[in-house]
Amino acid sequence: MYNESMLQMGREPSVIRELFAYGAARKAEIGEDKVFDFSIGNPSVPAPASVARALEELSHMPPEKVHAYTQSAGDPAVRDAIAQNLNKRFGTEYTAANLYMTCGAAASLSISIKALLEGNEEVAVVTPFFPEYRTWIESHGGTLVKVLARESDFQIDLDAMEAAVGPRTKAVVINSPNNPVGTVYSRENLEGLARILERKQAEYGTTIFLISDEPYRELVYGGTEVPWVPDIYANTIVCYSWSKSLSLPGERIGYILVPPTVADWENVFFAIAGAGRALGFVCAPAAFQQVIARCVDEPADIAAYESNRVLLASMLDELGYEYIQPQGAFYLWIRSLEPDAKAFSERAKSFELLLVASDSFGVEGWARLGYCISPDTIVNSRDAFAALKASYA
Amino acid sequence: MYNESMLQMGREPSVIRELFAYGAARKAEIGEDKVFDFSIGNPSVPAPASVARALEELSHMPPEKVHAYTQSAGDPAVRDAIAQNLNKRFGTEYTAANLYMTCGAAASLSISIKALLEGNEEVAVVTPFFPEYRTWIESHGGTLVKVLARESDFQIDLDAMEAAVGPRTKAVVINSPNNPVGTVYSRENLEGLARILERKQAEYGTTIFLISDEPYRELVYGGTEVPWVPDIYANTIVCYSWSKSLSLPGERIGYILVPPTVADWENVFFAIAGAGRALGFVCAPAAFQQVIARCVDEPADIAAYESNRVLLASMLDELGYEYIQPQGAFYLWIRSLEPDAKAFSERAKSFELLLVASDSFGVEGWARLGYCISPDTIVNSRDAFAALKASYA
Repeated sequence: MYNESMLQMGREPSVIRELFAYGAARKAEIGEDKVFDFSIGNPSVPAPASVARALEELSHMPPEKVHAYTQSAGDPAVRDAIAQNLNKRFGTEYTAANLYMTCGAAASLSISIKALLEGNEEVAVVTPFFPEYRTWIESHGGTLVKVLARESDFQIDLDAMEAAVGPRTKAVVINSPNNPVGTVYSRENLEGLARILERKQAEYGTTIFLISDEPYRELVYGGTEVPWVPDIYANTIVCYSWSKSLSLPGERIGYILVPPTVADWENVFFAIAGAGRALGFVCAPAAFQQVIARCVDEPADIAAYESNRVLLASMLDELGYEYIQPQGAFYLWIRSLEPDAKAFSERAKSFELLLVASDSFGVEGWARLGYCISPDTIVNSRDAFAALKASYA
Repeated sequence: MYNESMLQMGREPSVIRELFAYGAARKAEIGEDKVFDFSIGNPSVPAPASVARALEELSHMPPEKVHAYTQSAGDPAVRDAIAQNLNKRFGTEYTAANLYMTCGAAASLSISIKALLEGNEEVAVVTPFFPEYRTWIESHGGTLVKVLARESDFQIDLDAMEAAVGPRTKAVVINSPNNPVGTVYSRENLEGLARILERKQAEYGTTIFLISDEPYRELVYGGTEVPWVPDIYANTIVCYSWSKSLSLPGERIGYILVPPTVADWENVFFAIAGAGRALGFVCAPAAFQQVIARCVDEPADIAAYESNRVLLASMLDELGYEYIQPQGAFYLWIRSLEPDAKAFSERAKSFELLLVASDSFGVEGWARLGYCISPDTIVNSRDAFAALKASYA
């Protein structure tokens, strides 16, 4: 009577949301400061004042200039402002014609995948990965192929990629700075990936798209370079959102960039516009397109995440936890103290520590700590982390 | 190398958008007041002052209270405000649990269709219809079955519906007040539809959903009743947006209502949540959810459409055009002066009159006039309409 797989998808509680809901209930029960919730990836830094100024400005404009339909790809002036910003930062020559505005990164990814898949083709995904990748790939008729990251540093494992990419590979999805690990792929690592994809394209006579999911692009620490992926591999499509950099996750505003280096890029852009239409997206929210045009040069405010990162890492160092040094995003990837990460996460809960087991991201043996939280939570969690460790002694 | 049907969908210019673009170019060429553009369905009445006040208020609130992720179904307080508004108007007892907030009516329809279709089932659509219905039904694997409206008054043709609904019918889509015709289905007509669907459900042992697409609900004239469809047929799902009633088409804000009368409604709601997730919708734009909570009781400002309707209808009466008396929305459906409506629309263009041929909506022999325009355009178009008529004498 209705679609069973949609029902399952709507029913099945996301482990992350479930843990977050548990945390909220637990805080109500034993007190806000007694629960150490590292489960979420919701920006704790508020949107900058320039967003509020832009909104106020829009509230004084003639409404028909603010709330009308835009072109389905977005207001050309807004797209032009974004192109200029990218050109300044990356020395590129993009124009409005390369940019398709979306309702956030989820829409960017879903639309891109829908636009590219011609049937049951494969999409290779560096693993661990954001769990919704599977949802969109499978919903649009494709097959997700896991490509495990190198366990030493969670960079792309080039041997594994070499083995995974075949004649049915339509696209590869990467996410750097990475959720859940916090790694940033090095230039050398990305160049290695590009060489593999170029060779495979030549070997199979196919086009393999690299979908670079970059909502955390500006959230990097210690001068880490985030290479501009389209400079390294021609057939790169960039999916972006301002959810993290401007702390606007609820507003659903982002873009798909189809650089002119992409093979047959104008038709790829048309296919993206067609996929947006097919899925029921009409245009990205109009007022927030205007907000973006006014705030596009605003730097991301990463000071709080940066100091949280240092605080959390030094505490874990002191307590002897093993983890991957985070370079970007606002996540830290910690080694589970037993092989079963779900059991580890459950035990952590008994110490009021909420961590997401790595199984949610497609691998075993680790857990994700989100540090987009109050520094007090980190400081106050010390005893709980110590007790958790001691419980395994 | 990319999906060909998405490419076609992105390439193929919508006739309406193409005509609108032609009009804009033509105005630049011969002067704004020399072109009579009836092609569009973009609200000409600006959003009410309460929207601007709400936006300004939001600009002074802590950003994290405005721009954060909401639940995927929407902020419970916003959904509750909408439920209260519906309950006051329709004597219902809806709660937040019956409402799933969306990025506008297009998203509402796409998500509902995706949630319901289990395979290649049929969706019966009263014809003429909004052309994107076909896009969403076919994109989600279904088959659109046209059910021609009665040509005398463009109400639902119950005999045609009886013949069209079969064991593979998953849903019927209606749109009242109607785009493109401007009719409002009478209570009697809807009761006839309900009897057919109830009988067919019993005969086939299936559930047949009635998807009631209602973005024009509040745009009605002369005291015409717009019956509350879920009161007439239990398995009704309502798709709504504030694009027309609050003139917010670019903001992409609407809802899906799954009333508790719908069979297994909680699971239908879950399937809708799953479909939203599968398509890449995360939540409806957060700030505009808050705007809606503040403006939900604001009446639609229909005075300008009402007087345009009278102006246009009396001019066409005087000139001897045949048309369907519009009761709602902001469209008037005029009989083509030759069997080929596309040729009629082309000839109208030579008189600087822009009308959309009925072929775009799935029928022949008519054209749509949108009267959400300046009254001056209507007044000044008189000679052109007279000349168009004379050219057929």
